[in-house]
Amino acid sequence: MSTILPIVSIQCMIRSNMGNSIKRLVVLGSTGSIGQQTLEVVRALPHRFRIVGLAAGKNMALLSKQINEFKPSFVYYQGKKTEAPLTNDNYELLSPEDIASHPQADNVIIAFSGSSGLSPTLAAVKAGKTVSLANKESLVMAGEIITREAKLNKAQILPIDSEHSAIWQCLHGETQEAAQLILTASGGPFLGYSSAQLEEVTATQALKHPSWQMGRKVTIDSATLMNKGLEVIEAHWLFNMPFDKIKVLIHPQSIVHSMVEFMDGSVKAQLSYPDMRLPIQYALSYPERLPNPQLPRLNWSTINKLTFEQPDLDTFPCLKLAIEAGKKGGTYPAVLCAADEIAVELFLSQHIKFTDIARLVEQTLEQHQSVTCPTLEEIMAADTWARRKIREFVGAGTC
Amino acid sequence: MSTILPIVSIQCMIRSNMGNSIKRLVVLGSTGSIGQQTLEVVRALPHRFRIVGLAAGKNMALLSKQINEFKPSFVYYQGKKTEAPLTNDNYELLSPEDIASHPQADNVIIAFSGSSGLSPTLAAVKAGKTVSLANKESLVMAGEIITREAKLNKAQILPIDSEHSAIWQCLHGETQEAAQLILTASGGPFLGYSSAQLEEVTATQALKHPSWQMGRKVTIDSATLMNKGLEVIEAHWLFNMPFDKIKVLIHPQSIVHSMVEFMDGSVKAQLSYPDMRLPIQYALSYPERLPNPQLPRLNWSTINKLTFEQPDLDTFPCLKLAIEAGKKGGTYPAVLCAADEIAVELFLSQHIKFTDIARLVEQTLEQHQSVTCPTLEEIMAADTWARRKIREFVGAGTC
Repeated sequence: MSTILPIVSIQCMIRSNMGNSIKRLVVLGSTGSIGQQTLEVVRALPHRFRIVGLAAGKNMALLSKQINEFKPSFVYYQGKKTEAPLTNDNYELLSPEDIASHPQADNVIIAFSGSSGLSPTLAAVKAGKTVSLANKESLVMAGEIITREAKLNKAQILPIDSEHSAIWQCLHGETQEAAQLILTASGGPFLGYSSAQLEEVTATQALKHPSWQMGRKVTIDSATLMNKGLEVIEAHWLFNMPFDKIKVLIHPQSIVHSMVEFMDGSVKAQLSYPDMRLPIQYALSYPERLPNPQLPRLNWSTINKLTFEQPDLDTFPCLKLAIEAGKKGGTYPAVLCAADEIAVELFLSQHIKFTDIARLVEQTLEQHQSVTCPTLEEIMAADTWARRKIREFVGAGTC
Repeated sequence: MSTILPIVSIQCMIRSNMGNSIKRLVVLGSTGSIGQQTLEVVRALPHRFRIVGLAAGKNMALLSKQINEFKPSFVYYQGKKTEAPLTNDNYELLSPEDIASHPQADNVIIAFSGSSGLSPTLAAVKAGKTVSLANKESLVMAGEIITREAKLNKAQILPIDSEHSAIWQCLHGETQEAAQLILTASGGPFLGYSSAQLEEVTATQALKHPSWQMGRKVTIDSATLMNKGLEVIEAHWLFNMPFDKIKVLIHPQSIVHSMVEFMDGSVKAQLSYPDMRLPIQYALSYPERLPNPQLPRLNWSTINKLTFEQPDLDTFPCLKLAIEAGKKGGTYPAVLCAADEIAVELFLSQHIKFTDIARLVEQTLEQHQSVTCPTLEEIMAADTWARRKIREFVGAGTC
């Protein structure tokens, strides 16, 4: 006896059985380092992902190439259209928030750098999207609001940072809360430097990261360890962990990306070469893992040792400043982010010394009157205040 | 408005909500190293585990202490009852097979050493039990039969070996098969020795394992790397992995207990100090993890480096012999186990040299006529043949 099913049912069955329908992606920050690597993953796995939206800043030359290649339906840019030729003009211009919350997007990759990531992240979360989050500042500045809205709207936030992806992978399948998260840090190019030596380092030196190829802002943040401090705050919100259960461990080889200790004392670690395409791909393919021949595999005949040491909080005070700001909460983390963003710009443009970054951030935090349980407006006001304040300090020659 | 529930329902709710009903355990091999450590875990978590059965060999002094303390309902021993005082005599004497398959056992810990573990393991699996398996030989000798019977009878086999527990923990929650398993090995006390140096080592030296406290047989097997070879075969059956996807990596600190590489290139590792109580407890508490203050936690201020190197198959031929026997299948693995068991005994009783262990095992394997898809009887016959053969070699002075 055979039963003839209507064609609709069969198609549904095929779709669910194959489990590999194409995911539609929007990438905010497509011309930055994470954005470009996201597009590399999509290029390697065209049968699984399709780009439906792109948003960028002012790099019109690169964006126009990406538009021509991926033919997105929605686009946002800050540059001038006349700056680059577009062979494909068949897209709708939308705001980053509208792209991030668009009904056609299955997975929203937020790779804007700095505080500009906050508003589109919130829009995506409010629309109940699956958000692949590479932008640290969203959770650092407004972790309480974003995680609350995510819960309310059943949005999923998937981490793209290698450390948080590692923790997420280690937690996967475990039903009980972790005893401790251990975030690893390469230590940056100045690991082992004394405070006196740090006074003299240049932007060129600071931009030479020993293990990771990243954007300029995050590379400087890695050199100061501010990046790791922001990641501690991010981990606090992503995994709902108290700050005293989040530890930082220096691991210069950047192969162990982070670890989780469970309540029986067992520790799980996630390892791979430092290549952002792996955590990006995992966020896009989750809960599946996809073979991608472009992703490097660990070669254990060349990995002889993995080393670990405690971070030096006196020489690299940014880590301590960030964790303290995170613990205090309120608008302190927003001020931390904004002050750091401006301080890094000033360092890169050679207006201040490397060690002034921590000094300026600390001074700004000290003068801040924090607001408890801030609204988004209060967070943005704190951001504006901090940007003005730090420029005042530098103008007045305080540091 | 309040609703009064009958007391039975409330008790059911409490039971299911707490999820911590007491598991009834039987321990086969309770006076050995793994058996004693299993009882330590039970002693530390008396609200979660109760011993209902104990089986031991001839160490009546220790067994009688265990019987007095844990008051099991079923007991088996090979020694004489008159050898030790038993204040508690309120138990039933049963065979190891009857204890392993007893309806009152929720979790059957098989910690018999050598081929004596095979028959009770099979009995437990046929009874559809949850089997916590510390005995390597069961799966090495009869992996096909045991895994087939486990499937047929819906028995669960949970590994107690630290390496297999590590792999199991890393696979937990993952829905796709692994790309590769990486079994770590301490390398034993003779790591870095030349073949010539190995000719001279004594049993006392071989019994001094640098990182693990274990029974005598497994300690010698660790020194020859035979132990790792047996673990490769065990992993093949436990995780249904082809031999060419199981690698061995020397890691002298014994902190990374094994790793799994997934198809996207991501690797997960499980770490802890070398302490068998952790994998034992995990097999008993699974799928839960339980806090146990007696289990040590990794102290990252003292762990500075983890080192890795490729195994030296020429100097330590037992690893190669075992993997080859595993690949060939049939009754070769049973002959490998039996020959190794006798060779280790002969080494410990100073009848042969350390390097003779591999030579004798190799000679025995070479002379064996393997049976394809063997029955249990054929496996036991191969075991008997190998034991006789190796004694003939030694008697004849062949090695």
